[in-house]
Amino acid sequence: YFSGSPVLVVEAPFAEAVLLETLALSIFNHDGAVASAASRMVLAAASRPCIEMGSRRTHEQAALAAARAAYLAGFASTSNLAAGQAYGIPTSGTSAHAFTLVHDTERDAFVAQVDSLGKQTTLLVDTYDVEAAVRTAVEVAGTGLGAVRIDSGDLGELARQVRRQLDGLGARDTRIVVTGDLDELAIAGLAAAPVDGYGVGTSLVTGSGHPTCGFVYKLVARAASDAAGAPLVGVAKHSPDKATVAGRKWALRRLDDSGAATAEVIGIGPLPDQAEHGADVGGRRLLVDLVRDGDRVWREPLADSRDRHSRSFGELPISAHQLSRGEPVLRTVYETDVRQRR
Amino acid sequence: YFSGSPVLVVEAPFAEAVLLETLALSIFNHDGAVASAASRMVLAAASRPCIEMGSRRTHEQAALAAARAAYLAGFASTSNLAAGQAYGIPTSGTSAHAFTLVHDTERDAFVAQVDSLGKQTTLLVDTYDVEAAVRTAVEVAGTGLGAVRIDSGDLGELARQVRRQLDGLGARDTRIVVTGDLDELAIAGLAAAPVDGYGVGTSLVTGSGHPTCGFVYKLVARAASDAAGAPLVGVAKHSPDKATVAGRKWALRRLDDSGAATAEVIGIGPLPDQAEHGADVGGRRLLVDLVRDGDRVWREPLADSRDRHSRSFGELPISAHQLSRGEPVLRTVYETDVRQRR
Repeated sequence: YFSGSPVLVVEAPFAEAVLLETLALSIFNHDGAVASAASRMVLAAASRPCIEMGSRRTHEQAALAAARAAYLAGFASTSNLAAGQAYGIPTSGTSAHAFTLVHDTERDAFVAQVDSLGKQTTLLVDTYDVEAAVRTAVEVAGTGLGAVRIDSGDLGELARQVRRQLDGLGARDTRIVVTGDLDELAIAGLAAAPVDGYGVGTSLVTGSGHPTCGFVYKLVARAASDAAGAPLVGVAKHSPDKATVAGRKWALRRLDDSGAATAEVIGIGPLPDQAEHGADVGGRRLLVDLVRDGDRVWREPLADSRDRHSRSFGELPISAHQLSRGEPVLRTVYETDVRQRR
Repeated sequence: YFSGSPVLVVEAPFAEAVLLETLALSIFNHDGAVASAASRMVLAAASRPCIEMGSRRTHEQAALAAARAAYLAGFASTSNLAAGQAYGIPTSGTSAHAFTLVHDTERDAFVAQVDSLGKQTTLLVDTYDVEAAVRTAVEVAGTGLGAVRIDSGDLGELARQVRRQLDGLGARDTRIVVTGDLDELAIAGLAAAPVDGYGVGTSLVTGSGHPTCGFVYKLVARAASDAAGAPLVGVAKHSPDKATVAGRKWALRRLDDSGAATAEVIGIGPLPDQAEHGADVGGRRLLVDLVRDGDRVWREPLADSRDRHSRSFGELPISAHQLSRGEPVLRTVYETDVRQRR
């Protein structure tokens, strides 16, 4: 989404619209913050999978929404089993340090885990000494061990040491998963290290520095009278720094011939009719009907939303790949009528 | 809480204790972050009431927990009616800009609100022009108007102008409530302005820069055998930077003769017996039994928790009143036996 662009338009009697305000903003502001962080992390991770592991660092119900938002934005899986059950998100995880500590020896813990979950499991190797643990892990599970997890220390350097050790032991297909206060910058910093997956917790569920989005919900027009079909009258507040633009908006993402996005186009009034202008209304329509006359008319499986996010991200200019702070990668253009620009 | 101090001790079979891990950490990390921010804001606001208004900037269920955490830490009320219903927290609020905008004129909106809610209501005066709105507000509600809310602009300067205007109109008891991206530093910055209350949203529910606490849940001891009453064996992980201290802990807040806290005292093993040492075990016990043999044995009304937070905060050194970053105001002292220090 880009500055000033309508993400949700509600047409309703005033009291009903006001009742939706807090719930709609809660969902957009919370889930949007997590999804935005997830999208940056998935970008930084390139083709390596990211695992959502942040439940313990956010509210217990927000954790489910965070797992869903992360998956939508490209995460591969979640460690939250309730989110897996509720939304059909793939679940994955590794064992905890407590599992190793409750056994008499690290070897006992590894044997118990491999006996129960098979050799494809992920063994945690940093409870005591990483090198000794990797040796034990391959002795217990064999060279077919699925993965090892490193949760502390210099992750890049440890990953290189562990990769060399695993290769030397013949466990060339054993993957290395790293965890431990990762964010998109730390993930990008590990791009050259032999890492096969990232487990991300705290920074993901707290929006990685941006724990809430700035979505607002504003009255921009009201009916001129109570009569059915009464014309809309634009309204706007003039509060300093918080002024709003009057009028019901539409939004298009303008694309060039190659399908690359070039601008966010916002207009006031009815969306220009597709029929009237041929197939080209000047871009991809960003608003669809979700509810009509109180009935839900749009359903999108989570996997489709995930694909759509990936496609929309792919349309953006290369500057969207920048992880540091910057200006919006698309400018917002206001048009009252797309025909005027032709 | 202070570094290394146990906030929750769970004694249970391994599988049961592990099941509690994520839920317990979610509650402590989320609610603790909000309560910590709230406590700093209440401190900055001194005797002026703070109103929790952050629901729209956090997950819809987290919003209820945030309202509860804020109240516990000293907030006066919440705008979340569901939190009022669930936890008995006083509710309050003002009208929205949309309420003014949906009327033909600001005066119509004020008349409708005062007719419905009485003169003690709070009128929002920054939709169009603050000075004109304040004049209209007093014309409509009279000099007995409860309060006005300012949500934008230079809040300190506007509060001074509005105070002068209200006093000039004879509305000397009409209060001024300010809102708009306030945090503890902005609240402290308004200490000299004629403000009667603060509405706080975004920064409160996102922990004001610290959206999650760093609570962890660690296995520190296990029974030597499955026999009932088997002795505990301390266990600890050695992960770099994440090492833990083995052994079941107790915690006391050491107080001097005036009741001021001087140290967080943590010991390993059983808490020194109060009877054995007279009334003085070296401080205030920080752990109480919540659940015994699966039965809940402790209930504390929210108002009592709120009072307890206020008393505990009052025990802390004056350096706890510092709003900028700093060292912990109490040092953590490890003792294996309080008798050794006597």
